[in-house]
Amino acid sequence: MNQISEIEIFCPGTIANVSCGFDVLGLALDGIGDRMILRTSANPGIKITKIEGQNLPLETEKNVAGVAALKLLEHLNSSRGFEIEIYKNIKAGSGIGSSAASSAGAVWGINKLLGEPLSPKELIVFAMEGERLASGVAHADNVAPALLGGFTLVRSYEPLDVISLPHPSELYATVIHPQIEIKTSDSRRILKQNISMKQAITQWGNVGALVAGLYTEDYDLIGRSLEDVVVEPIRSILIPEFDTIKAAVLNVGALGCGISGSGPSIFALSKGEEIAKAVAQQMNKIYTPLGIDFEIHHSKINAQGIKQL
Amino acid sequence: MNQISEIEIFCPGTIANVSCGFDVLGLALDGIGDRMILRTSANPGIKITKIEGQNLPLETEKNVAGVAALKLLEHLNSSRGFEIEIYKNIKAGSGIGSSAASSAGAVWGINKLLGEPLSPKELIVFAMEGERLASGVAHADNVAPALLGGFTLVRSYEPLDVISLPHPSELYATVIHPQIEIKTSDSRRILKQNISMKQAITQWGNVGALVAGLYTEDYDLIGRSLEDVVVEPIRSILIPEFDTIKAAVLNVGALGCGISGSGPSIFALSKGEEIAKAVAQQMNKIYTPLGIDFEIHHSKINAQGIKQL
Repeated sequence: MNQISEIEIFCPGTIANVSCGFDVLGLALDGIGDRMILRTSANPGIKITKIEGQNLPLETEKNVAGVAALKLLEHLNSSRGFEIEIYKNIKAGSGIGSSAASSAGAVWGINKLLGEPLSPKELIVFAMEGERLASGVAHADNVAPALLGGFTLVRSYEPLDVISLPHPSELYATVIHPQIEIKTSDSRRILKQNISMKQAITQWGNVGALVAGLYTEDYDLIGRSLEDVVVEPIRSILIPEFDTIKAAVLNVGALGCGISGSGPSIFALSKGEEIAKAVAQQMNKIYTPLGIDFEIHHSKINAQGIKQL
Repeated sequence: MNQISEIEIFCPGTIANVSCGFDVLGLALDGIGDRMILRTSANPGIKITKIEGQNLPLETEKNVAGVAALKLLEHLNSSRGFEIEIYKNIKAGSGIGSSAASSAGAVWGINKLLGEPLSPKELIVFAMEGERLASGVAHADNVAPALLGGFTLVRSYEPLDVISLPHPSELYATVIHPQIEIKTSDSRRILKQNISMKQAITQWGNVGALVAGLYTEDYDLIGRSLEDVVVEPIRSILIPEFDTIKAAVLNVGALGCGISGSGPSIFALSKGEEIAKAVAQQMNKIYTPLGIDFEIHHSKINAQGIKQL
């Protein structure tokens, strides 16, 4: 076997909870992501040898990449050893899948170095273990799009059933990350345990229509369906100027706008790069006077997910 | 203009509330439907001249076909006159869209006789007026698939936004209509006004996945997604032997099974006619000893909807 001993990869940021698709729909970004280098080692197990860009634990068992990688090796009954370097660009707590990028990158990279014994879909369950470490919940909302690219739908967890959805080629995402901290516990606690049947019906009508819009490349339908009547009205109050941003970006032609993950990042989807840039300008204009640090990225939807550099 | 003065049409039965798609997803049947004859008349307005098969009012204003037709003429500012004959095969209260077949047939037939000034999609809103007369609610769950054929998704009512979905060609429906009466008021009252967020998420994950399965002709995915965790567990208690039927038809290979509309009809979807027939046999075997009259139909999904005979 002609196996490589080192690879460098791009691990994309991801948007979970895409509007109506709360807890089920995610997508991969292209303009923002981490870099990782993985190499084989003579010492069995996983060693995180370097982390730059964020202050995160190097101990394998305390690092999301380390934990995900260990679970993969355990599953494969492998006694091989690997070193991991992580170059973070995605800030922890940004709401665009920082932990997922590392967890997914670790298992993707090691799988590659092992000659790809598993498919990207089969890797999801191991990457989810990194999410369990990060948030207490082994969710797939971010690791699935990171590993599969494009849009993904998590239909079920027991058993895990993740579906890759297509998307039209001119679909762009713009994301603003206001650098404020929203505690996950807060953003969870304010959600209601029960919702009205009426809201729920509106939501699943929109999810069905959004999926149809993705298959038919119907940008208008995608736009009409990017509506979240359940979670966004509640969580958006934690994000400064959310409503102002949403109105402004729709006004310059965005198809839809919502909260990325559990926030505080806000995303918008647009047809074409020109509108995605105009959206970024609006976000910039509204946030600049606030005195809150922020970052804005725009990119095509990343159809591939994690990729070798 | 070379316009015809009389047409005979087939108005299909329809299944609303397709499993996870409560209140949004419907489909058209091919094996069961009404026949209607519509002809132009020298007398302006709508006259129902004959109804066979069911005891329904001939007075235009009290008949769902009459009311729907009047709304269409009103919209078109037409002073033309039409006679309608209705030959009912779909029993009222069956849960497979009896009123919808008549309402949709009336507007479809008259539109045809007028040289098709409107598209089938544009006719939905007038057919909905028949549903308003029948049930007090101008819903589109049955008239949309009757008019458009195949699977339809009602994304929104304000504004009305109905999406035609594709389906794989070997998809068959089997329907059993137990001839018991379930009052719509009862089947509405037992539904909860609030549902848990967890149930709702499961439901919208399934709706998204079902739509994906229809686009990709993935029968397995369609089967996995045909799950209703919200309404079926509650309403199914009103339908004798629902659980027995569901278990038996899944056992012989049906993709999924659920309540048609608000019942009492039960439907199953299958890949291929052989399984659809085996499903019918199971339904027959379970219902025969009960001493309840019943009818069973099976057919391909009707891709066309209402058609000229």
